[in-house]
Amino acid sequence: MWQAQVFVTFKRGVLDPQGEAIRGALGALGFDGVEQVRTGKYMQVRLRAADEAEVRRRVDEMCRRLLANPVIEEYRFDLAPAGEAGK
Amino acid sequence: MWQAQVFVTFKRGVLDPQGEAIRGALGALGFDGVEQVRTGKYMQVRLRAADEAEVRRRVDEMCRRLLANPVIEEYRFDLAPAGEAGK
Repeated sequence: MWQAQVFVTFKRGVLDPQGEAIRGALGALGFDGVEQVRTGKYMQVRLRAADEAEVRRRVDEMCRRLLANPVIEEYRFDLAPAGEAGK
Repeated sequence: MWQAQVFVTFKRGVLDPQGEAIRGALGALGFDGVEQVRTGKYMQVRLRAADEAEVRRRVDEMCRRLLANPVIEEYRFDLAPAGEAGK
């Protein structure tokens, strides 16, 4: 069993109105000095695969086909062995 | 200038219907062996602060007051020095 942590972020240059809203809200709460907030998605995927090469290939394909929108988003992920469920 | 990477995830035991929907969609796309998908939020915050202790204190307060809902979510973050904007 493996656990992938997937990070999906907007490509540089893509507007992030949610991040701008958070930056404004932080300022309204009195947090000074916040220059930029960029938002993204974070997913933890637990999956079975024979070895690290296979899990890497499959998670990359998941990102390209479903988890990220390659037109405006980029993704990265890291992998770690995971214990069986319930352990 | 510092960059904080903030990860907000549901607490253990909190239902994650979006993650379940993604798991189902991965199965429908032919990805076998996906046991669980948990979704979360990922934010990159660039801010000015005098030193690492101050930025750590401020980002922790941002998480508690705005970025995470402490009733159902937990958060963690890491910090790194960041270059000035445009560099």
